[in-house]
Amino acid sequence: MYIFTNDYAEGAHPAILQKMLDTNFEQQTGYGEDQYSIAAKKAIRKEIGNPHASIYFIATGTLTNQLAISCLLKSHEAVISAKSGHIQVHETGAIESLGNRIIPVETTDGKIRPEDIIKICHAHTLRPHVVKPRLVYITNATEIGSIYYKEELIALAACCKENNLLLYMDGARMGNALMATDNDLTLQDMSRLTDAFYIGGTKNGALLGEALIFNDPETYPEFDYLLKQKGALQAKGRLLGIQFLELFTDNLYYELADHANKMAMKIRHAFKEKGYEFLLESTTNQVFPILPNRVSETLRTNYSFLEWAKVDRDKTAVRIVTSWATPESIVDEFIRAIPH
Amino acid sequence: MYIFTNDYAEGAHPAILQKMLDTNFEQQTGYGEDQYSIAAKKAIRKEIGNPHASIYFIATGTLTNQLAISCLLKSHEAVISAKSGHIQVHETGAIESLGNRIIPVETTDGKIRPEDIIKICHAHTLRPHVVKPRLVYITNATEIGSIYYKEELIALAACCKENNLLLYMDGARMGNALMATDNDLTLQDMSRLTDAFYIGGTKNGALLGEALIFNDPETYPEFDYLLKQKGALQAKGRLLGIQFLELFTDNLYYELADHANKMAMKIRHAFKEKGYEFLLESTTNQVFPILPNRVSETLRTNYSFLEWAKVDRDKTAVRIVTSWATPESIVDEFIRAIPH
Amino acid sequence: MYIFTNDYAEGAHPAILQKMLDTNFEQQTGYGEDQYSIAAKKAIRKEIGNPHASIYFIATGTLTNQLAISCLLKSHEAVISAKSGHIQVHETGAIESLGNRIIPVETTDGKIRPEDIIKICHAHTLRPHVVKPRLVYITNATEIGSIYYKEELIALAACCKENNLLLYMDGARMGNALMATDNDLTLQDMSRLTDAFYIGGTKNGALLGEALIFNDPETYPEFDYLLKQKGALQAKGRLLGIQFLELFTDNLYYELADHANKMAMKIRHAFKEKGYEFLLESTTNQVFPILPNRVSETLRTNYSFLEWAKVDRDKTAVRIVTSWATPESIVDEFIRAIPH
Amino acid sequence: MYIFTNDYAEGAHPAILQKMLDTNFEQQTGYGEDQYSIAAKKAIRKEIGNPHASIYFIATGTLTNQLAISCLLKSHEAVISAKSGHIQVHETGAIESLGNRIIPVETTDGKIRPEDIIKICHAHTLRPHVVKPRLVYITNATEIGSIYYKEELIALAACCKENNLLLYMDGARMGNALMATDNDLTLQDMSRLTDAFYIGGTKNGALLGEALIFNDPETYPEFDYLLKQKGALQAKGRLLGIQFLELFTDNLYYELADHANKMAMKIRHAFKEKGYEFLLESTTNQVFPILPNRVSETLRTNYSFLEWAKVDRDKTAVRIVTSWATPESIVDEFIRAIPH
Repeated sequence: MYIFTNDYAEGAHPAILQKMLDTNFEQQTGYGEDQYSIAAKKAIRKEIGNPHASIYFIATGTLTNQLAISCLLKSHEAVISAKSGHIQVHETGAIESLGNRIIPVETTDGKIRPEDIIKICHAHTLRPHVVKPRLVYITNATEIGSIYYKEELIALAACCKENNLLLYMDGARMGNALMATDNDLTLQDMSRLTDAFYIGGTKNGALLGEALIFNDPETYPEFDYLLKQKGALQAKGRLLGIQFLELFTDNLYYELADHANKMAMKIRHAFKEKGYEFLLESTTNQVFPILPNRVSETLRTNYSFLEWAKVDRDKTAVRIVTSWATPESIVDEFIRAIPH
Repeated sequence: MYIFTNDYAEGAHPAILQKMLDTNFEQQTGYGEDQYSIAAKKAIRKEIGNPHASIYFIATGTLTNQLAISCLLKSHEAVISAKSGHIQVHETGAIESLGNRIIPVETTDGKIRPEDIIKICHAHTLRPHVVKPRLVYITNATEIGSIYYKEELIALAACCKENNLLLYMDGARMGNALMATDNDLTLQDMSRLTDAFYIGGTKNGALLGEALIFNDPETYPEFDYLLKQKGALQAKGRLLGIQFLELFTDNLYYELADHANKMAMKIRHAFKEKGYEFLLESTTNQVFPILPNRVSETLRTNYSFLEWAKVDRDKTAVRIVTSWATPESIVDEFIRAIPH
Repeated sequence: MYIFTNDYAEGAHPAILQKMLDTNFEQQTGYGEDQYSIAAKKAIRKEIGNPHASIYFIATGTLTNQLAISCLLKSHEAVISAKSGHIQVHETGAIESLGNRIIPVETTDGKIRPEDIIKICHAHTLRPHVVKPRLVYITNATEIGSIYYKEELIALAACCKENNLLLYMDGARMGNALMATDNDLTLQDMSRLTDAFYIGGTKNGALLGEALIFNDPETYPEFDYLLKQKGALQAKGRLLGIQFLELFTDNLYYELADHANKMAMKIRHAFKEKGYEFLLESTTNQVFPILPNRVSETLRTNYSFLEWAKVDRDKTAVRIVTSWATPESIVDEFIRAIPH
Repeated sequence: MYIFTNDYAEGAHPAILQKMLDTNFEQQTGYGEDQYSIAAKKAIRKEIGNPHASIYFIATGTLTNQLAISCLLKSHEAVISAKSGHIQVHETGAIESLGNRIIPVETTDGKIRPEDIIKICHAHTLRPHVVKPRLVYITNATEIGSIYYKEELIALAACCKENNLLLYMDGARMGNALMATDNDLTLQDMSRLTDAFYIGGTKNGALLGEALIFNDPETYPEFDYLLKQKGALQAKGRLLGIQFLELFTDNLYYELADHANKMAMKIRHAFKEKGYEFLLESTTNQVFPILPNRVSETLRTNYSFLEWAKVDRDKTAVRIVTSWATPESIVDEFIRAIPH
């Protein structure tokens, strides 16, 4: 049985494990002051073209979103998120649990547009009886595999600025977005156009870890206190530092995401060729073919994947996720198993 | 200029002020242990037919909703509310600020139905990645003047029980609901069918104050601690006690609400007679006629009321609110001012 | 039985009730925008000599402390308070409940001194593993009746500035402090030397209400949102406005506190004359004589007051509190009842 | 330069890294449902003699303490902790940040005794104006290296039960406590005598991770929601599972702690032999010798350790910490460097 359910079913890329082994008995300062964390931050600052950025490594995406967003908001301020946004659907009320409301936006493709933001701002003017929109949360790649284009991100950033809103990007699948064939954004763009964003490690070959970036170090200069207070400061910070140092050495981060995307595109192409339709188009590592129920059932004898949405009585859209670790041989086998 | 904007533009019913004057120099125990608070609770327990209920007087509706709901929920549990519910639209994220998510339900008439609840429960099964629905928040009368019927409340209560959900009723305009011509519920029913509810004073003749009722005293027996901690315990609790003692002496609570409703119905009838249509039908103290813009403008030279919603380029639905203090003579004058 | 237990056993000063009666049927805008609240703020701004101050009327002292302090602090920042401070001993963890730690300081007289602050700052340098002291909370008069002198407050304010700390004064008994025979501070001084403070109404003749003042309006310009969110915004804000308008008309606020203090001093003098000692010296409205247990018992047949602290097997320090409403005739009677 | 500053300067025990390597490409279910987490929980349940315990692996000690304690408390309930307790001194207000007060207890040896608890309970009876003590937090080994004896823990547990208090043990250095020469407690005792406790991995050879144990699974059956909500649920839970599976295979957990303790005892013995005194006696992996300042300075040219407390002008107590990874050869060298 091969798992196409998610992109975190394996451990870490071997280069990361090797580095951990090689440096295991070096004594390092704790709590993120180790030399690997320092070097990893330096590498990321170079990659994003921002020598002044504040960077923090955090174990999980939920913790990253929660801390980054809550530190940027007062209690009467709210986050705008797509209805399909991770903080809205799959983080068990993490944002609310620290005191802030999420204002969800209905979208067709997981992406927020300036007009959505303006509409929400207009609906929240009855001060002080309503929350004040203050931050826009976007994901790239989105939860359904779509990506933001440069023109869109520029427009969004401008709209945020005009409306006194902060822009935050969840990059759990940042690598997949960057390596999409139709992508025209770079990490430098993210750093220039958002207030804060994170580069996801867990879903791109790390054992754990997300790299949170405040593009302006003055945004929340005392974030280290918050990290410690909310249990996000690892005594052995070297563990996180090594993940990102390796990922940002010799373009490993990009290569891993590129592999995941290529495997997905190969699968997508195969479904298309065999005449299947798709619930959603995606150029990243998620594919959403619509399958007759019996096809889905047959494929699932050897492959596990998610039933995403019932389309009609006979058909179901499924989600197939590939990763940095998906062997091409398995993909080829799977493709052969897809009936015409 | 007469204000039809809300039902809290005046002070208190004179009987309440008189009682305050008469008892002003009596020395009373503080923090809700005064004899007026004790007597008022006794009167309410009798009125709701529940001698064991725990009752607390709280200065504002937002504070009441916030404390009552947050004490009933763990941080991963969520409230189901109509999209038009007061906690969702006009309390500045009060519920979220203490850590819980609200799950909004689209409704046409401000009322939640069992099928809404079931749908939400089905959409929240991916434990532990999603919040757990745990409490249903309803308002009666609703924010748009509609009321729950007995059959509806019974069905809702049953659905809550089946789905392990608590039922909480916001009674900011409870009097108006109870005195509606088509109402078939009593305070005894509220006490029997909900887990907790509040009887609103502020919008029915009190200077301030809402009476929060836990129908089973074991629901949150240490609520007094929470009251004090969140600044809701008045040193001079007599102030709140006297409001409710007077309101529940000689049926004053019902009479005041009845007057407000009658004034509203008179206005509604007048609009109807003169050929106007309504955005919403309501049998309580809010009327929502659709007015040509120039009519609205004319009326607003002497009367203030809210523009509720644009209907088309030429017409606007407005909201006219009456209260316990609205003089019938003013209503008659207003009616005369409505053009045919 | 006469109650000397606290200073909130009666209702309100008759002038306040009269004003409420006189204006009861005027229609006023809700939520603090009424003309009485506006006028009361104007009167207070004049009294404190600060035309730009932001002022908010809040129902209780706990709510005032909680909202004012929490809005000034980030979650890793802490409040320094005397161990006897109200937020530390009698507010059920209100500050912590909104997320901040209190660092208590042992004092002999309820007053914090610069050396206390400096010591605490030195003990909190292991960033980010410890909280960051950020605000100093003082009460004037203190919970045990002592007051700050001008020289002390100047020194404290300077120490706060040097250490990047905010200074907040709880003025639940501000009137009593200002009218103490040895007082040399004015409300103008409070406004000049603190960042925020409140003028207590509840313990000085109001039915309810504290006037929170941010001396610099830029300190937290969106405080109105917070008020609404935490249930502190009264629909009938006129109730609070009238309290303070009357208190700050014709020096009523000062006269009421002066009366309370005089009654206390009379009692204190009587105990002294009859040879009793005191646990604490106080020039405000609290007296702490040390009584043989049988004297305490005898007095308590007709007067109720608090046993404050056991001194030895035979003696107890008690607390006698007077108020704006304490009749001089009762005080004279009480004095006669004190045995030699 | 060798670091004696803490017990988390190295990576992980090689057996753990090896297991990670060996299993790296196995596809595992995410979020703690992997086979290693399941096996590790099974091993721990056996070790603690409690087949029904609920066990959760959490990345850091602060996160563990914070989530475990906050889920057990309502907002008006407080934690009793030694003044030297980790939650009180080194977690940046983590407990308060989620809403609860800590009541600190002055101790001489870091250990809480029944009389401390009883005193605090007596000081918190003025309901509802004070917080309600509800949980006792202890650490074993304590922050200063002392350990609880069986008789003490039994007495503490009984006192808690009598006073309706929960007992929670922070076991960041549980291994060091268990392997102390004077220890008479077992993990089974901890499970029998506390409500919840954690077995620390980070300070005993794991890369990261603490094993939180609710001895009665009904204590907080929905803790998984909280884990996810507060960002504590690792997508690759296998990482945590493997740490604990290895630690509880072939007694590795005990052996590592035993080694750390033996190294510390060797150092302690050396200081004693050479005539030095100690600030604190400890039988675990921390040693607190009192050194003339020039000795401290000399030793610190090759060894790093913490200055713990000034004793007088010429002498300082220092803290030397050993770990599972401290080589005996380094210890021998260090001992030779200690002057007579």
